[in-house]
Amino acid sequence: MLNNTHNPKAKSWVAIPENSDFPIQNLPYGIFSSKDNPQKRIGVAIGDHILDLEKVGHHLSVKDKKVFSTDVLNDFMALGKEVHQKVRQDIFELLSEGNKTIGIESLTHQNDVTLYLPVRIGDYTDFYSSEEHATNVGIMFRGKDNALMPNWKHIPVGYHGRASSIVVSGTDLHRPKGQKMPPNAESPVYGPSSRMDIELEMAFVVGKSTELGDTVEADNAEDYIFGMMLFNDWSARDIQKWEYVPLGPFLGKNFGSTVSPWVVTLEALAPFRTSGPEQSPTPLSYLQTSGPKAFDIQLEVSLQAEGLAPQVICNSNFKYLYWSMSQQLAHQTVNGCNLNIGDMCASGTISGPTKNSFGSLLELTWNGTEPITLSDGTERTFLEDNDTVIMKGWCEKDGVRIGFGEAKGKILPSK
Amino acid sequence: MLNNTHNPKAKSWVAIPENSDFPIQNLPYGIFSSKDNPQKRIGVAIGDHILDLEKVGHHLSVKDKKVFSTDVLNDFMALGKEVHQKVRQDIFELLSEGNKTIGIESLTHQNDVTLYLPVRIGDYTDFYSSEEHATNVGIMFRGKDNALMPNWKHIPVGYHGRASSIVVSGTDLHRPKGQKMPPNAESPVYGPSSRMDIELEMAFVVGKSTELGDTVEADNAEDYIFGMMLFNDWSARDIQKWEYVPLGPFLGKNFGSTVSPWVVTLEALAPFRTSGPEQSPTPLSYLQTSGPKAFDIQLEVSLQAEGLAPQVICNSNFKYLYWSMSQQLAHQTVNGCNLNIGDMCASGTISGPTKNSFGSLLELTWNGTEPITLSDGTERTFLEDNDTVIMKGWCEKDGVRIGFGEAKGKILPSK
Repeated sequence: MLNNTHNPKAKSWVAIPENSDFPIQNLPYGIFSSKDNPQKRIGVAIGDHILDLEKVGHHLSVKDKKVFSTDVLNDFMALGKEVHQKVRQDIFELLSEGNKTIGIESLTHQNDVTLYLPVRIGDYTDFYSSEEHATNVGIMFRGKDNALMPNWKHIPVGYHGRASSIVVSGTDLHRPKGQKMPPNAESPVYGPSSRMDIELEMAFVVGKSTELGDTVEADNAEDYIFGMMLFNDWSARDIQKWEYVPLGPFLGKNFGSTVSPWVVTLEALAPFRTSGPEQSPTPLSYLQTSGPKAFDIQLEVSLQAEGLAPQVICNSNFKYLYWSMSQQLAHQTVNGCNLNIGDMCASGTISGPTKNSFGSLLELTWNGTEPITLSDGTERTFLEDNDTVIMKGWCEKDGVRIGFGEAKGKILPSK
Repeated sequence: MLNNTHNPKAKSWVAIPENSDFPIQNLPYGIFSSKDNPQKRIGVAIGDHILDLEKVGHHLSVKDKKVFSTDVLNDFMALGKEVHQKVRQDIFELLSEGNKTIGIESLTHQNDVTLYLPVRIGDYTDFYSSEEHATNVGIMFRGKDNALMPNWKHIPVGYHGRASSIVVSGTDLHRPKGQKMPPNAESPVYGPSSRMDIELEMAFVVGKSTELGDTVEADNAEDYIFGMMLFNDWSARDIQKWEYVPLGPFLGKNFGSTVSPWVVTLEALAPFRTSGPEQSPTPLSYLQTSGPKAFDIQLEVSLQAEGLAPQVICNSNFKYLYWSMSQQLAHQTVNGCNLNIGDMCASGTISGPTKNSFGSLLELTWNGTEPITLSDGTERTFLEDNDTVIMKGWCEKDGVRIGFGEAKGKILPSK
């Protein structure tokens, strides 16, 4: 349901630079500290600034104002959608053109802050919901005829990932070492990964818990989703390939995953709701939903080699995903598995139908056989040391751009 | 290193019933509340009683006594091995025969308490470290010639599991529903699992954290392990079979796992250290250890159908595991994956060489083809509704029995 906070004509008294991700219609939540106040607290991005909710808490429809002075969003998320809607409305009014209730003393410039991982993550699930990605990987490793596994069109396939190593954008990661089986070798070897890859994903954050044994109906699943972020599921393909049979990826993934610092709420995304791909065969009834459950979110990946400018290597869209977040969450709980506030679910690599929309280097370079040429003429199949990857995402309609900021990380040499 | 707390002749002034799991040489930690004090707090099991550490904290070598009044062991674990050793020594002395420092007012009978999940679990990893189990499953699903995957003897194979649904012994679980592909069917169906199984495992709890990018040397890995528990990795085989390719088990496992309430420290287990199976081929150097890293822990599984007495269906031993906990932890961190205090790592099903030592119904009934006969003449292939499974474990030597209590749970009908 749209309301006045979605009005594309709405303006803020805070100057919003052109192409900013954070107009008054967005209002994403994050955790920050500033030069003048090293205490972590909740902020809302507005243009190039952050509205400090600790400072303006007395204007917001929340009883216990301490919730704005915490170092993660979990307690705030626990207040429930009704409160979140009121707070969004409150903030929208405080920042609206003409409103003089608060002034620039409640804002901090984003250049003067440190942003943190915004949620205390309970469990983290990674899905595998792009048909194009699953097909591409399937063709490379099993041939065209067996590309998609028999379960893929029936199940939003997913697996548990590592929560401890999810880091906020800007955190550099060391190239992981591990065990791998070189082609045609007889024994595995130990060493740094030589096939360092990215996966362009988005993640949602669970904002409402369930009890063990409870299930979430697919059509109610969005009640359990607080918001979304960009997610880079860094992958060491050589380590992954040797380890993943039969129990799935482990050390090829869990050395680090990067999320963007701002949680964009489902409410902010409401105007960009759309239908996902048609599903055939029809999924089992517990996976059926009514109405559009996808979102039209444009995605972009840039690779920045040391000393060069960032170079766009992929343009994709969240709406390409075959399985919706609602279906993922219904599936995750169909067996009674309980959800905690702060749980994170990532989409899986979001690849589109054309080659420039593939969401991993594995696909973009077709398993390393078709290198990407950089602006200085050098080539990339997988990531080199000191390569930086920047993921961006935004919705755009009626002159309004709801953006996610960025998920950025550099691969440092192995320790 | 053994010290006076391991002396098999040591006695307590607390009466220890014959065959108790909790003599003065054990001293495992748990979280409890009692009829007269509903506040959760740390206790130590001694015979049929619990020593209330909140009450005796002023006698223990810990500066901040509040650590004993918390609802999980995490803050206590964070104090480090040196403190834990002192506290063990303190408690040993307080409870030693002839010591009059404290009396029965510091004890609560175990009949009068509620026990809780003793740790706040961060991430949970499930390994797959029994050669016999991996081979049995491999033979059933891929035939004798391809039973063990090529990586199995090189890697302590593991995967991430769900932390939110790990419950303490005594918590009943509903039979999970989900999607499964019946034999010879063309489409999957939705319904309760009809192949409900157990997995006899043990888990260790991480008591020391690492930073992202750090690795743990195999020979130092025990410094990071606080203690061990019994672990039942309930498994819905039909759900698991349909979902697990290519990313591993998910809903077939994450509806619930049961742990025993007492954490037995590695110190208490020191006298039962032994060597594991010989490893051939020699693992890569990061997985090599010196000295015995296995523990001689006898394990027993009983099945109790409604109205019948518990019936032992499996006797196994922790020492059968091919990969040690030290190797598991070195592998888990070889890529820089960070550990948090409270992380839990389970062993994988612990099967031995003989049929009565197989740690799952899948193996015990050889994929349902060789049913178990119960005392009333009825049969079991997989679990029926209202079946209870009880796992026990203990070490025994020189008249001392260091036990783990039990991991017990009942399968209720589907919700």
